[in-house]
Amino acid sequence: MRSSNPQTPSSFEVLTPTRFLDRAAAVFADRLAIVDGERRFTYAEFHDRALRLTGVLAGLGVGPGDRVAVLCANSHTMLELHTAIPLRAAVMVPLNTRLSEPELKYIIEHSGARLLIATTEFAGTATRLAIGCPVRVVLADGQDADLEARMQEATPAMLSIDNEQALLAINYTSGTTGRPKGVMYHHRGAYLQALAMAYHTGLDTSSSYLWTLPMFHCNGWCFTWAVTAAGATHICLRAVDPAEIWRHVRHGVTHFSAAPTVLSMLAEYRGAHDGLGQPIEVTTGGAPPSPTLLHRMAQLNIHITHLYGMTETFGPAIINQWQREWDALDPPSSLR
Amino acid sequence: MRSSNPQTPSSFEVLTPTRFLDRAAAVFADRLAIVDGERRFTYAEFHDRALRLTGVLAGLGVGPGDRVAVLCANSHTMLELHTAIPLRAAVMVPLNTRLSEPELKYIIEHSGARLLIATTEFAGTATRLAIGCPVRVVLADGQDADLEARMQEATPAMLSIDNEQALLAINYTSGTTGRPKGVMYHHRGAYLQALAMAYHTGLDTSSSYLWTLPMFHCNGWCFTWAVTAAGATHICLRAVDPAEIWRHVRHGVTHFSAAPTVLSMLAEYRGAHDGLGQPIEVTTGGAPPSPTLLHRMAQLNIHITHLYGMTETFGPAIINQWQREWDALDPPSSLR
Repeated sequence: MRSSNPQTPSSFEVLTPTRFLDRAAAVFADRLAIVDGERRFTYAEFHDRALRLTGVLAGLGVGPGDRVAVLCANSHTMLELHTAIPLRAAVMVPLNTRLSEPELKYIIEHSGARLLIATTEFAGTATRLAIGCPVRVVLADGQDADLEARMQEATPAMLSIDNEQALLAINYTSGTTGRPKGVMYHHRGAYLQALAMAYHTGLDTSSSYLWTLPMFHCNGWCFTWAVTAAGATHICLRAVDPAEIWRHVRHGVTHFSAAPTVLSMLAEYRGAHDGLGQPIEVTTGGAPPSPTLLHRMAQLNIHITHLYGMTETFGPAIINQWQREWDALDPPSSLR
Repeated sequence: MRSSNPQTPSSFEVLTPTRFLDRAAAVFADRLAIVDGERRFTYAEFHDRALRLTGVLAGLGVGPGDRVAVLCANSHTMLELHTAIPLRAAVMVPLNTRLSEPELKYIIEHSGARLLIATTEFAGTATRLAIGCPVRVVLADGQDADLEARMQEATPAMLSIDNEQALLAINYTSGTTGRPKGVMYHHRGAYLQALAMAYHTGLDTSSSYLWTLPMFHCNGWCFTWAVTAAGATHICLRAVDPAEIWRHVRHGVTHFSAAPTVLSMLAEYRGAHDGLGQPIEVTTGGAPPSPTLLHRMAQLNIHITHLYGMTETFGPAIINQWQREWDALDPPSSLR
C-alpha cells in the first residue's frame, strides 16, 4: 500500500483528440456531425469515413511520423483528416491557403512532407507545387476527386498512439519576421486545448459551430476536435462571405470564432439591422475589438469573448472570462 | 525536425487539481469562494488558507507519501485540505462519517495514517479512535480548534508534484461485500474528472454549488476541485436537511448533486409546492430516479442529469447526456 505511483496499464489512457470522434460515434451516432454545402454526415458516417481514410493513407504509404501536408478549405475532408492522419500515427501539416506558392513550397520541403492533400479550390496551386517538389498530390473533391474514389474501396488501417506527447501536427507561423517556423503539436496538448475550448465556449450537444475561422489556423484553435468532443454540429464555410455567415447565423448557428475584421464586416452587412432572436457565442482574437464594435455586437445579440493566443500555444491561451459583476459597469462615455 | 517526441521541460505541465485554486486566486481573487454557515472566504482567502495549511501539515510532520485521514463535515476545512494535503505531496484518506468506529479504525490502520483531522461534529469520535490506534488527532474547528490556531501562525511549505500519477488520495469503498478496500486516486485522474464535472454540469463563474453530496464520497465526485476550477461558489452544507436545502435553492444555488432519496425528501418538503424561478442543475446517481420523481423535479424547475460511477472511477464515469430530440418524447402513460 505504500507505493506512491499507482500507474498500471488498466488505469492509464493516452490523451489524444482522436478519441473524441470514437465517443461521438458511439453516443451521438445519428446526430448531424457535419454540414458542408449540400453534403451532410452523421457522427456514425463521419467516424466511418475517417476510419476508411486511414486505409487510404496506408495505401499511399503513410506511416508513423510521416508528414502529410494539407491545402484544404474548411470542409468535411479537412475534419476527416484531423482524425485520420493521427490515427495513422502520422503528422498533419496544415497549409495556410493564403500564402504564396514559394512560401507553401518552402513549408512542404521544410516539413519533409511527401504527400499533399488538397480540396478542389486549391487543385491548381497543388498541381503547380508538385512541379520541382518531391510531393505527391491527391485531390480530395471536385471532378478529380482521387481521395473520394479511394475512400470508397478502403478498409480501416489504424495505428495506436502509445505516447501522448507524440507529434500530432506541425503548424507553421505566419513568417512575418522571417521564414515560417514549424510549431510541433502533440496529442496531449491538442486534447486538453479542445476540452478547454468546449468548456469555455459552452459547446454542447445542441450547439452548431460555424467555421468562419480557418481550420488550418492552429488546427482551428483545436475546435476541429472540440466541436466533435461536444457532439455538436460542424457547419463548414469554404470562404468568408458576410451574406453567407449571416444566413447561417439566422438559421440555428450558436457559436463561431472570427477576427474583429470579420465581425466588422458582419456588423456593416445590410441584412444585419434587426439583430438575432437567440444569442450567439463568438470568440475573437488577434486585434482587440473596439468598444464600438463590441457595442454593435451586443445590439445584435452576439456575445463576444476576447481571447489571446499564439501558434505556439495550440491557439487561445488567455481568455477574458466574464464575471457577473461586470454587467453593472458603465459603457465608455462615447457610447452612452 | 524528425523527432517524434517534442517533450521538453518548457512544454510540459503536470496535471494536478491543486492548480485550480492557484488559477482561481489569480483570476477571481475577490469573488466569493466558500460559504460555510456564517463564514465566508474569497478565492484569495481560500488560497491563502490552503497555502498556510501546508505549513501546518509540515509542522505536524506530514511529508511526501504520508497518509492524512480526515473525518470532516462538508466544510471550508475539508475544501482547504483538498488542496493543502496534495501540496505537501501527501495523501488524503477521506473517512465516511457514517461508518462505525471499528470500521473507521480499520481504515485508519490499513491506510497507515498517523494524523487524523476532524471537524467539530466528529471531535468525540476522533478522540475515541485515537485510543489504541497510533494516530494523532487535530481538531479543525469548534472550541478546541487546534488547526485554526496553528494556521494563524503558519507559513506556506509546499512541495512540488513531478509525477502526475503520484498518489493523491485513497478512497475506501463502502465495504458492503467485505472489508472496505482502498482505491488509489492519482493527480491526473482527479484533474481530468474535475474538468469533466465542470464541463458536463455547465459550472461557470456565476454558479453556486450546494454541497448536499458528502465531500468524503470520491472526493465529492471531484466537485471539490471542479467548483474551484470554474471560479464558482461552494456552499457548504454540514448536514442534509430538506428545509435548509430548500432555503439555499431559493436563494441563488444553481447546482447540486444528490441521491434520489434526497431528491424525494426535497419533493415532499412542504415548502416546495411552488417551484423555482430559475432552473437548477442537479446530478443524481446511485439508485435510478423514478419517472414520478423526475416528473416532480421538472415541475419544480429542477433539471436532472443521471450519472453512474464507482469509487474506482473517481465518481461519475457514465452520464446520460441530454439530446435535444428527446424533448419531443412522451412521458410514461402513468404521468400523462
